[in-house]
Amino acid sequence: MSQFSERLKSLHITRPTLLLDKEKVIRNIEKMSHKAKAARLRFRPHFKTHQSAEVGNWFRQAGVGCITVSSLEMARYFTGHGWKDITVAFTANVLEIETINSLAQEVTFNLILDTDELVLRLASGLREKVQVWIEVDVGDHRTGIRWDDDQSITSLARTILNTPKLAFCGLLTHSGHSYHAKTVDEIRSIHEDSLGKLRRVKEGLRRDGIGPCAISIGDTPGCSVADSFAGVDEIRPGNFAFNDLKMWQLGACTDEEIAVAVACPVVGKYKDRNQVAVYGGAVHLSKDSLLDEVGRRIYGYVSRPGGHSWGPVEKSAPVVSLSQEHGLIEVDEQLFQEIKIGDILVILPVHSCLTSDLFRSYRSLSGEIIPRRQSNDPN
Amino acid sequence: MSQFSERLKSLHITRPTLLLDKEKVIRNIEKMSHKAKAARLRFRPHFKTHQSAEVGNWFRQAGVGCITVSSLEMARYFTGHGWKDITVAFTANVLEIETINSLAQEVTFNLILDTDELVLRLASGLREKVQVWIEVDVGDHRTGIRWDDDQSITSLARTILNTPKLAFCGLLTHSGHSYHAKTVDEIRSIHEDSLGKLRRVKEGLRRDGIGPCAISIGDTPGCSVADSFAGVDEIRPGNFAFNDLKMWQLGACTDEEIAVAVACPVVGKYKDRNQVAVYGGAVHLSKDSLLDEVGRRIYGYVSRPGGHSWGPVEKSAPVVSLSQEHGLIEVDEQLFQEIKIGDILVILPVHSCLTSDLFRSYRSLSGEIIPRRQSNDPN
Repeated sequence: MSQFSERLKSLHITRPTLLLDKEKVIRNIEKMSHKAKAARLRFRPHFKTHQSAEVGNWFRQAGVGCITVSSLEMARYFTGHGWKDITVAFTANVLEIETINSLAQEVTFNLILDTDELVLRLASGLREKVQVWIEVDVGDHRTGIRWDDDQSITSLARTILNTPKLAFCGLLTHSGHSYHAKTVDEIRSIHEDSLGKLRRVKEGLRRDGIGPCAISIGDTPGCSVADSFAGVDEIRPGNFAFNDLKMWQLGACTDEEIAVAVACPVVGKYKDRNQVAVYGGAVHLSKDSLLDEVGRRIYGYVSRPGGHSWGPVEKSAPVVSLSQEHGLIEVDEQLFQEIKIGDILVILPVHSCLTSDLFRSYRSLSGEIIPRRQSNDPN
Repeated sequence: MSQFSERLKSLHITRPTLLLDKEKVIRNIEKMSHKAKAARLRFRPHFKTHQSAEVGNWFRQAGVGCITVSSLEMARYFTGHGWKDITVAFTANVLEIETINSLAQEVTFNLILDTDELVLRLASGLREKVQVWIEVDVGDHRTGIRWDDDQSITSLARTILNTPKLAFCGLLTHSGHSYHAKTVDEIRSIHEDSLGKLRRVKEGLRRDGIGPCAISIGDTPGCSVADSFAGVDEIRPGNFAFNDLKMWQLGACTDEEIAVAVACPVVGKYKDRNQVAVYGGAVHLSKDSLLDEVGRRIYGYVSRPGGHSWGPVEKSAPVVSLSQEHGLIEVDEQLFQEIKIGDILVILPVHSCLTSDLFRSYRSLSGEIIPRRQSNDPN
């Protein structure tokens, strides 16, 4: 029996449990932190993936002093855990102006916005000074002003500069389209393209007499595989701390760098279809999926014990179906024979941010319970 | 301004909020309850959809005395709220034998299983008597013994009858394949097919001298559209209490019967692509999706105010993309003009069970906070 099998056994898992390999997380943090230092970038990791004060401390121990979150609730949680410089990388929500005021009183508070209207509405409600970034859309087409809409960008920058409660920081983007890349080269080319666009926007602002203007970028695929960050001042990746099958499929991490997994009890075996049913469904893994080489929708892959932790991705053991509490795993003949009812299977998640969000805590491999922020509280 | 717009305003919503229309839920409960009474069926609704003691009370007021859940944690929660007869419609998980013993001491406890091995493992750990059902697979191919595997079914029934701690109740199925139907007629034909198969299995057992044997069926699509329940003793639908876009697309409910929705603040407008960004993402709606008529993946539809509640499904305003906290909605020219930043949009969920699972409470239209069971506690 491998060391990991022994460890799993000692955890006495009886139902779906979110495992976290602390050593892998720390290695992932150090790798990205070194990369940022080498490129002289401010490292402002996104904490939406882990949403845990304790995991936050591991970043602190790696020298991190400023962070990114994607909601005011997360900002409040991490403010309560001693973080003093926070960017909410989600369009400022004017309905939460009171929360913005209260947080801006306590910490260096960074907001992002993409319209003059937002500036005006913020200006009328803000009591505290906040730092603001213009969100630029370089190709993801989620939020932000289009990078080639010079006029709107300059107008917005001027409106910000004319608003006493707002301090203009620069341009911020999330190149989320890198998640749709097919190869590492494609990720690199999206990254280079994004940087080129941002530098042109900055140059345009400079010509209009607007500056200084920092550049902040954010996607894990780009930050993971890029070699150069010309013109960039700050990076905000988040997913890299845990990674997942999506990152692995993109080539943005190795399977040894996937730091979270869901341990699921086996409840059924079906010989005629070579399938195994586990207690572990959409409320544990999330319905996020990936398409394998033959275009089949996959909700996770089994990983078997490998030394101190789980091992490589078992391509021959995909999660092919998820209902609320059930997962169905297709396995080969040999694995089918090996697996027994009552065994624990370790499943690697497609999207670690969404999977982690479904649990109230992590279980470290040494058995420690590591709490997460409780989301979606009553209003 | 409609009455519903006024109500929404009075709720002072500032972030994604799970709305529940109590009147619709009660109408949905009464409709199914009348159907069960008319067909002389035991009504054992599945509580996995709502997971709320208070919503449970609305069922109690409609005369419901026994319930279905899909985990032992849910069973424990509802036992704590006075329910005395509970079926866990999820393959008995032998790793949780201590929880099974403790629950079986307090309530009439029904388990389901599909192998002799499970019976033997339960028998060795059970201290209390439990009722058991054989789970039969009539076409869903998730869990259960295949309906045409007479030998295994008879053998399992005999093993159960020979196990003193187990009381044999009958055959239970979940015809989950009805969720993949394209028309109401197809749902009806899956329903009839399932019933025919179950009656044949029961008849086979009777010929082998095994009985009495009840029949329990469970899917909301079948229970919602079926006119006849020949041979059935018990129905266990759950989703019907809330319904959702999936049920509506199947023709298993009208849009007036969709009783939950997520209220989301508008944070961005993008004229060049006629899209609106809302604060409301995969951690609020879930990544469950449906395909519209042209094969496009949809994560929800907007519903606009209509009298006392939200109105019909707005086919022209689909949620076309979800990331962790963001939703992107495609809208027509007119709606684009009407919507303002800071407005609240009401989004109907694709799968109400998964959407509800992401929140810790419901907000009733009169402003009441209705708590839900907290899931995925630390082990």
